[in-house]
Amino acid sequence: MQLSKIGEFGLIKKLRAKCKNIPPEILAGIGDDAAAIKQGNIKILITTDMMIEGIHFDPSFTTFYQLGHKFLAVNISDIFAMGGKPKYFFTSIGIPKNYKSEDIDELYSGIFKIAGKFGVAIAGGDTCTSKKGLILSGTLIGSADRIITRAGAKAGDGIFVTSTLGDSAMGLMLLKSQKSEVRSQKFKNKNRNLKFKTRNSKLETLNSRSVLPLIKKHLTPEPVPLRNTSKVSSMIDISDGLLIDLSHICDESRVGAVIYKDKVPVSGELVNTAKALKADPLNFALKGGEDYALLFTASPDIKTTAFKIGEIVKSGRFIIDENGRKRKFKPEGYEHFKRK
Amino acid sequence: MQLSKIGEFGLIKKLRAKCKNIPPEILAGIGDDAAAIKQGNIKILITTDMMIEGIHFDPSFTTFYQLGHKFLAVNISDIFAMGGKPKYFFTSIGIPKNYKSEDIDELYSGIFKIAGKFGVAIAGGDTCTSKKGLILSGTLIGSADRIITRAGAKAGDGIFVTSTLGDSAMGLMLLKSQKSEVRSQKFKNKNRNLKFKTRNSKLETLNSRSVLPLIKKHLTPEPVPLRNTSKVSSMIDISDGLLIDLSHICDESRVGAVIYKDKVPVSGELVNTAKALKADPLNFALKGGEDYALLFTASPDIKTTAFKIGEIVKSGRFIIDENGRKRKFKPEGYEHFKRK
Repeated sequence: MQLSKIGEFGLIKKLRAKCKNIPPEILAGIGDDAAAIKQGNIKILITTDMMIEGIHFDPSFTTFYQLGHKFLAVNISDIFAMGGKPKYFFTSIGIPKNYKSEDIDELYSGIFKIAGKFGVAIAGGDTCTSKKGLILSGTLIGSADRIITRAGAKAGDGIFVTSTLGDSAMGLMLLKSQKSEVRSQKFKNKNRNLKFKTRNSKLETLNSRSVLPLIKKHLTPEPVPLRNTSKVSSMIDISDGLLIDLSHICDESRVGAVIYKDKVPVSGELVNTAKALKADPLNFALKGGEDYALLFTASPDIKTTAFKIGEIVKSGRFIIDENGRKRKFKPEGYEHFKRK
Repeated sequence: MQLSKIGEFGLIKKLRAKCKNIPPEILAGIGDDAAAIKQGNIKILITTDMMIEGIHFDPSFTTFYQLGHKFLAVNISDIFAMGGKPKYFFTSIGIPKNYKSEDIDELYSGIFKIAGKFGVAIAGGDTCTSKKGLILSGTLIGSADRIITRAGAKAGDGIFVTSTLGDSAMGLMLLKSQKSEVRSQKFKNKNRNLKFKTRNSKLETLNSRSVLPLIKKHLTPEPVPLRNTSKVSSMIDISDGLLIDLSHICDESRVGAVIYKDKVPVSGELVNTAKALKADPLNFALKGGEDYALLFTASPDIKTTAFKIGEIVKSGRFIIDENGRKRKFKPEGYEHFKRK
């Protein structure tokens, strides 16, 4: 069977079914943001993420410094999504022979910078030649007192997100619309500052005020942990898109969800830019992905600065639009292997 | 600077120099087979290995089942090299869109088979699309009561290897010499049994008796732990080749080594096949790599079934040949990025 028929999530499901005799110390395994393993009195979290040139990133959009940042950031986000603290990072890197050692230095500078910010130690890895394109595979080890999985949501819980959504997806679209001269220039200048040039005059006007922050969100996402998780029943980070990631919580918790379109938070920058492009900002917020915000469920009396976007219900998955119309939603967003 | 000038080990050295403020619970980090981290009373081992199609394996040589076996086996070997027990495996896999889901099923069958043999649980991972070729990145977590690094060898210690060397390198050379018809047939038939056909009539005669075991060693290495490690001062697994890996022990322990060429163990199969090819079997044993045997140093009074091949000395790296001639050796074998 072609992989495009079964899809990424179908493949994971098949793999999961194969895993029998899971030892009791594995508190969470395949199908969560990170695995959680009890070792003595300590709960260890382990997450792995692979980033492949041409699939997950385009070197004409990003500097290696920014790429290094993002490489560790997406792993930190997975540890935060389990309620944990990131600790030790392992980098396996496949490097094409035509790369310069300065490129890899820059990549590691980006990794070390964000590692320092979050108290993460670079503890090992593997370095090898790649046939084509840069391949980054990271493993981040963390720990947690209380593990929060995707499986604890209960009917009546509120659904929350920790930040505005859709900026990253819009940022990516903007990068794709850049003039190719600008792209190649970025590397020649070794300039780490963002640049953006396009033939769309409306976007040019918005440039530094709205457009650059969106691009920055895409290139260098900044994960933020949830401080108080005592009332949180389930959590996931938004990497594939709100609708997909909320569906993961529904699947694992065996519940349904209702969300209100007009409660999904979007930034002023996204609204402005979408307006210039005559696009719906909510489309980016619901299906965009790579937000690396946290999506969580909690008892409704939780005190939080996060945005409440809906409620967990017994079954069904619904979105209520700005006119009060209720419709079913599907897990639309980014899935590997599926044809677009 | 071109990576081919600095090489894999130069790159690792640079990275290591960047790692400052290493937290005290990291007992071993970059520059060993696995990292060792103390968590409460438990010492955790973490190793990562990347295998890239066209660099580390050739799908016309191996079935996906065999590849799955080797993928986990090389990681298990790293944990054994630290004196540890393998426990939890995480697989990050980048899959080209044209692969079939059956290929991935077969890969996982190979992984699950060897996982079962060594009591390893598959605990998570990441699955994504690859632009070109299959990419396997594995992280294996283990534990150990006593961590054995590359850094404990002392002058006067004996140097030992746990099995014959060079079989795998010869096996790879034989696979490369195969008729292309045979290679493609292997996949059409989904036949997991080894086949070998060549135009070299001498090799044909040796076929099942000598040649097939060598190929098997290359495709499906079987790591074996060292039972009693109480007198072992340093250890490494032979992945890049005896001379390189012994040099790593010398570097980390700041000692020298003398080995005796005629004490390096070689299998009858390797001797027979090398004879037919008019090649020196010791060349494969010293520089071949991918043996996944253990190379260790220990006080000379150790009781062991391993082969003693030399002694640790204060400084210098020497090989004494069958005629008693002493010459310096260099770390020759496999290094990524270096031009061959």
